[in-house]
Amino acid sequence: MKSIKNRLQQQIQFIREIDNLKHVLRRTRLFNNSRFENDAEHSWHLALMAIALSEYSNEPIDLNRVIKMVLIHDITEIDAGDTFLYDDNRNSSTVQKEAEGAERIFGLLPAEQKDEFIKIWQEFEKRETPESKFAAAIDRLEPLLQNYFTQGYTWKQHSIHKAQVVNKNEPIISKGSSVLWEFARDLIEKAVSEGYLEIKKDA
Amino acid sequence: MKSIKNRLQQQIQFIREIDNLKHVLRRTRLFNNSRFENDAEHSWHLALMAIALSEYSNEPIDLNRVIKMVLIHDITEIDAGDTFLYDDNRNSSTVQKEAEGAERIFGLLPAEQKDEFIKIWQEFEKRETPESKFAAAIDRLEPLLQNYFTQGYTWKQHSIHKAQVVNKNEPIISKGSSVLWEFARDLIEKAVSEGYLEIKKDA
Repeated sequence: MKSIKNRLQQQIQFIREIDNLKHVLRRTRLFNNSRFENDAEHSWHLALMAIALSEYSNEPIDLNRVIKMVLIHDITEIDAGDTFLYDDNRNSSTVQKEAEGAERIFGLLPAEQKDEFIKIWQEFEKRETPESKFAAAIDRLEPLLQNYFTQGYTWKQHSIHKAQVVNKNEPIISKGSSVLWEFARDLIEKAVSEGYLEIKKDA
Repeated sequence: MKSIKNRLQQQIQFIREIDNLKHVLRRTRLFNNSRFENDAEHSWHLALMAIALSEYSNEPIDLNRVIKMVLIHDITEIDAGDTFLYDDNRNSSTVQKEAEGAERIFGLLPAEQKDEFIKIWQEFEKRETPESKFAAAIDRLEPLLQNYFTQGYTWKQHSIHKAQVVNKNEPIISKGSSVLWEFARDLIEKAVSEGYLEIKKDA
């Protein structure tokens, strides 16, 4: 009984620690533009998107693994902070901080659970399996929708232009889902024609 | 191709609509007491709790179904609003609003997806299957932790006393997990001894 209690205490410590993901703010806004989104609600939204859109994966996928992947994919940002997609400074120091964060946070769990979480997180980071490719596509699609529905809020704030949006998103989204990339490309075109996104950044 | 596009548009409408869950505030606070929790981040936290604690279910469960269940269980509150656990006014009007919310929101999806979501949501509401009993236990455990870690914030704000906490939680948590109820009961005792929770409400 004592060992069950110790085990449960470890799990409760993990559950307590990850509450901090609710404080990690992203650069994108809620669809009604009222505030920035946090990583916890972002992860929840991705899980629902994965469920609703799984049929569009290029390859057959284990949806349940995709769901777990998107639920935990940002937990290391509790220690490393959010990385902005268009910030090219995601350097070896950030990667190092995320790896250390994974060790520290997943390490609160009993050993075999830690191993399972680390494995899923690493799989997401590498984007080699059908599940991680689809998860990454969904992770890129949500901010496109957020930018579109907020009339380009984050794009405008950071002077992001169309070529950057295409270059950052096409390789990832099309690798996970050519149908979703086709949708995203149309959305980007509409964003340009409605004035939410500039075609060219003047030097 | 046109029908794929229509189908995808329906799914995107659903994805857009459920962003509103991030605006539905609960009565409980984040663990650091900085603000109220919203339903989207709450649902995310329950999914992680289900993954970390599934071994304590009284009965064998399909964890993947539990995860889906907690991810969608509060979506109807976009229309019905959050129901406070200790508010005994959850009447037929609230139940009716939630059922209409399920029709409206899940009804944005293509028919067979709508049916799947409604089925999972109804299963959660009825608490008859092992999965829904465990999901309900987790849904009760999170606010207990939040109250404990915020030194009884919500209990104090609403003058909730110990007998109410036990009466509201014991039947639900112990039905899903006797181990988690034992943990919860100890937590409630500690809350009392540390002055976070009153034993008796004076009339």
